[in-house]
Amino acid sequence: MAKVRFFGEIPHNPPGTVYQNRIQMNAAGVHMPTQAGISGTPREGADSVVISGGYKDDIDQGDVIIYTGHGGRDDRWRHIADQELTKGNLALVRSQLEGLPVRVIRGADRRNPYAPASGYRYDGLFRVESHWREVEEGGFQIWRFRLVRETASSISVPSVPETTGIERGNRIPSRTTVTTQRVIRDTALARELKQRYDHSCQICGLRISTPSGSYAEAAHIRPLGSPHNGPDTASNILCLCPNHHTMFDLGVFSINDDLSLVGLHGTLSILPGHAIDTAHLAYHRQHFYEELDRIVDQTIGLPVSDDRSR
Amino acid sequence: MAKVRFFGEIPHNPPGTVYQNRIQMNAAGVHMPTQAGISGTPREGADSVVISGGYKDDIDQGDVIIYTGHGGRDDRWRHIADQELTKGNLALVRSQLEGLPVRVIRGADRRNPYAPASGYRYDGLFRVESHWREVEEGGFQIWRFRLVRETASSISVPSVPETTGIERGNRIPSRTTVTTQRVIRDTALARELKQRYDHSCQICGLRISTPSGSYAEAAHIRPLGSPHNGPDTASNILCLCPNHHTMFDLGVFSINDDLSLVGLHGTLSILPGHAIDTAHLAYHRQHFYEELDRIVDQTIGLPVSDDRSR
Repeated sequence: MAKVRFFGEIPHNPPGTVYQNRIQMNAAGVHMPTQAGISGTPREGADSVVISGGYKDDIDQGDVIIYTGHGGRDDRWRHIADQELTKGNLALVRSQLEGLPVRVIRGADRRNPYAPASGYRYDGLFRVESHWREVEEGGFQIWRFRLVRETASSISVPSVPETTGIERGNRIPSRTTVTTQRVIRDTALARELKQRYDHSCQICGLRISTPSGSYAEAAHIRPLGSPHNGPDTASNILCLCPNHHTMFDLGVFSINDDLSLVGLHGTLSILPGHAIDTAHLAYHRQHFYEELDRIVDQTIGLPVSDDRSR
Repeated sequence: MAKVRFFGEIPHNPPGTVYQNRIQMNAAGVHMPTQAGISGTPREGADSVVISGGYKDDIDQGDVIIYTGHGGRDDRWRHIADQELTKGNLALVRSQLEGLPVRVIRGADRRNPYAPASGYRYDGLFRVESHWREVEEGGFQIWRFRLVRETASSISVPSVPETTGIERGNRIPSRTTVTTQRVIRDTALARELKQRYDHSCQICGLRISTPSGSYAEAAHIRPLGSPHNGPDTASNILCLCPNHHTMFDLGVFSINDDLSLVGLHGTLSILPGHAIDTAHLAYHRQHFYEELDRIVDQTIGLPVSDDRSR
């Protein structure tokens, strides 16, 4: 059987392990490709990435890395074409969709305080929190990925492993790394907004009624945190059901300045006094929305304006 | 204006701060009630809990605490009635729904290795990951809450704070604590199962198509991790859309042994060869499902069996 891609920490290669070169990393199984920065396939996901000085677009903040995709470069590392969401770039998106851990290896780079002095260093597991497109200085499109360090608590929920179906290649992880819980932390402002909407989705009107009260999610149109630095203001927040929150974050749909939807049929429902900043809508369309070949019918229910009474 | 409930860390009271008694905790604002173990209301959520030796049902694992609700006790701490999902118990559910951080204070308890030697100690922020009901030895119903320690990375995503709407009382947090991303980590087996279902929800048939591939979530019927210790086997996993995953975890609906739904109209769609263990279904019905007064129409779309072709 062919070697199977392994996600997660490689036994006997804890964070901090240093390798002299890429052949050594290949031999250890920490990063298999000897040239490519991203290891993985669109079907399986990406299992590791190397950050080195080559990509001047990368922003290394230690526990958060803004990683730039591959492609569109000449042999002197200059942008000469748009990057496409294929190959390694698409593999990173698959890791985002599946919540797969990505091994991050930093190569020597004297301009980066987080990089090793020489060689390569495995620096632990990160997850792909989001991806979006930007236009670099020369006018070409690039894809960027926000990698966030996994914390012990997010990867150490033990499960009862079974012998069938879990093994990957020859390595059997002693504990399965799983996080199946949704973690949505809202700001006070976001909670207030959700209450004003009575926890009804501004796209479809759904309100999830639980025995203990209703549930909705607050979505920031322009995301909080670097590099987007969207504000935590009502003009940047929507009240959505989990499905439409997921679709919005993944760029399945976006919103025009007149509040009609793009990518889905319908219009954003809005309460009097809740003014959305069209600059944030433009930011989302520009960076997150990508047109599908056709509009897949993913509308669920009717726009909330027709349907709030239920 | 009345004092407003404050969620999160109290300034000048870092984790590890020790208090001699509950009056001191009240003065510091760390835990306001001088008798109740849970501070909060069903509308606002719970901002702090005290764990002390009194509740023999609590399980303290350090970073994970299985906390037992209040009520149903006599003055000698014996169970004499069913606990209800009201008051402090319901406040903890609200904190779960909103993702609010809960301050955990441990009281002296020589049987608990994580408890202080004397007095009370603030031990940091936890989140309410889930809640469920159980029947204790004497046959009475109790409510339990899984509290999981917040990690630095999960609470330190900075945002750009605004002066309006964020202040709580006199305290203005210097950084807003927000996590708006969904973290779903799947086991290899769960990923395989989702692929078999072509990422279509087994309840409503929805498949979220993104520009980079389709998205669904794997739901363990009997949860992984303590105290449930459900197995990571196909017989314990469902492929669901985010909405139905949320509803399932929150007990809005459950599944009968014949795969008909309870709490929602419809039937679980199932592929040939995917056998669900009815013991896990019974576990979910028993611990997570709670009947609403009426069935709210929360079905979205049609059962997948009629609808897989789209």
